[in-house]
Amino acid sequence: MLSPEAVSEAHKRIAPFLNRTPLVQSNILEEMLYEKNRVKHTIIFKAEMLQKVGAFKARGALNTLLEQKEKGTMPKEVVAYSSGNHAQGVAWACGMLGVSCQVFMPEFTSFIKQQATRSYGAKLTLTKTRAEAEELTAKAQEAGAFFIPPFDSDAEIAGQGTACLESLQDGANPNAVFAPCGGGGLLCGTYLAAKGFNPGIKVFGVEPIQANDASISVKTGKIFRFPAAPETIADGVRTPAVSPRTFEYLKKIDGFYEIAERDIIYWTQWLNHLLKLTVEPTSALGMAAADKWLDAQTQPQRVLVILSGGNIDKKTWEQIWQEDHLQNNPGTLRSKILNAVQS
Amino acid sequence: MLSPEAVSEAHKRIAPFLNRTPLVQSNILEEMLYEKNRVKHTIIFKAEMLQKVGAFKARGALNTLLEQKEKGTMPKEVVAYSSGNHAQGVAWACGMLGVSCQVFMPEFTSFIKQQATRSYGAKLTLTKTRAEAEELTAKAQEAGAFFIPPFDSDAEIAGQGTACLESLQDGANPNAVFAPCGGGGLLCGTYLAAKGFNPGIKVFGVEPIQANDASISVKTGKIFRFPAAPETIADGVRTPAVSPRTFEYLKKIDGFYEIAERDIIYWTQWLNHLLKLTVEPTSALGMAAADKWLDAQTQPQRVLVILSGGNIDKKTWEQIWQEDHLQNNPGTLRSKILNAVQS
Repeated sequence: MLSPEAVSEAHKRIAPFLNRTPLVQSNILEEMLYEKNRVKHTIIFKAEMLQKVGAFKARGALNTLLEQKEKGTMPKEVVAYSSGNHAQGVAWACGMLGVSCQVFMPEFTSFIKQQATRSYGAKLTLTKTRAEAEELTAKAQEAGAFFIPPFDSDAEIAGQGTACLESLQDGANPNAVFAPCGGGGLLCGTYLAAKGFNPGIKVFGVEPIQANDASISVKTGKIFRFPAAPETIADGVRTPAVSPRTFEYLKKIDGFYEIAERDIIYWTQWLNHLLKLTVEPTSALGMAAADKWLDAQTQPQRVLVILSGGNIDKKTWEQIWQEDHLQNNPGTLRSKILNAVQS
Repeated sequence: MLSPEAVSEAHKRIAPFLNRTPLVQSNILEEMLYEKNRVKHTIIFKAEMLQKVGAFKARGALNTLLEQKEKGTMPKEVVAYSSGNHAQGVAWACGMLGVSCQVFMPEFTSFIKQQATRSYGAKLTLTKTRAEAEELTAKAQEAGAFFIPPFDSDAEIAGQGTACLESLQDGANPNAVFAPCGGGGLLCGTYLAAKGFNPGIKVFGVEPIQANDASISVKTGKIFRFPAAPETIADGVRTPAVSPRTFEYLKKIDGFYEIAERDIIYWTQWLNHLLKLTVEPTSALGMAAADKWLDAQTQPQRVLVILSGGNIDKKTWEQIWQEDHLQNNPGTLRSKILNAVQS
């Protein structure tokens, strides 16, 4: 396992090239939660949809390459596979540093992610399946290309941890941090940054119920793998399994929350509405878990929620807006409103 | 007509209570426009969806009340009617200053706007029609309540102009500014701020083709009124006519653009995608017009687009995502991408 200093070092390396994404809050959200819990909690969001490529993934990819540069082993050719934001992060980092980049993507990947990956200058090849993308990546690697994995590397973990580190530097001062868990890169980095800064901060991982492999793995003490990418609207966490490397961290965090699809959609709608930021379903996981955790807290808490990104395609927008959850707010405000109408 | 100083004075008055909303840019957007025009333009957005109540409307309402306070005529009871963001602005300003507030809204107003108006503490009464809302407002006014009109007052105009003023103070330094035009409050304030700061800045108003009453009025020299609120997805500019007061300013601006519904939706999708901010259709009008204006520019231009707000309900989200415009980008990047696939 890395030391927390690895995150600070990553931050020094990558910060000059990245956006310092803001911490944001919503008074209305906090009032709604107060009406429900009768305890005044503070919810602070780290807005990584405002990061380069619209997601935290730019951090780990850039850290990986700059670390190579420092070692004097800057690759000439980079290869990656991804059906999500990782491809964009790698393509962007390579484009900025002038490194040639080859990305393999399953053809079901949304057009906007293909388009963005190409717009950063990467050579994109579509494959029939994810397995084929991995296979072609392995071949490119054998042929000499430098492989940047989506989460299973120290450089990725340290890079992703910088989102939490910045939040702490900027005064978030949380009692608890919530981050989504796919392969575990963001969550492990968050764990390092939070515990390194203040061991008293609780760190929670969040998964969809339908993609709860990390939670199962931690409960059983053995890495559980879905036979295929699990179906969930939170497309950033469809990774079938964590890796032995990330599992070491995940065993140590304070707990996992598993969120129903309906609750993911509910919080996606509400966070888009209240924050006026594009909150992709994966980003809503943290708030859904925080809401559950806060239900059991009798003392005021300060919560940091890492909003992982904001890349949403037409199909996902349609899924998000099938029902109208804005009519049912997180507190009891609605009943108050209905009373007000009657009076 | 007001002098530009009225906007600076309004700003001193209201700034301590409001968010200093950021100026944002998109590299990808600018690259796409470059690919189309072969001239490097700069597009700067003023992000008023990040203002209190999610729209610029908080500015004018607050300025109105604080001006009364300065004069020692602070009302005890405020009344307003609105089917949109104005109600929220008035309710919020009253709530913050501890003034009792009564809002009349036609019952077709979206639930989220009703909910927000109530959450700021206003007493909300739903009416069958907009005419009935206006009638009840007039009665409340006769009974002694202080009426805050949606746009037809000096205090509103000066207040709305502060969004542009802040942009100029923050270094936007534009050659041209684009703002949507409903009743004209935002556009008139923008005109004052821009011309007062630098008379060389061009100021353009933007309307949906289907709600082009201001444009018709300026062309014919006489205020044109739609018999009813015109139908458009840009629900912030459905006002049937401008007022004699705002018309005086509108006659002097550099021109009007009329935007097709399809183009409003196109730019709503693209701005939500590129900026990761919630851009309501009314906000997209300015970019749609800027795109048209830039097509005719042979020299690099700096453009300021006022994004008016970000309040979108389920029905409007569904309308926005009926087609997928993200597959057709603003430049010729798409053809480049398709070539890249083939090569």
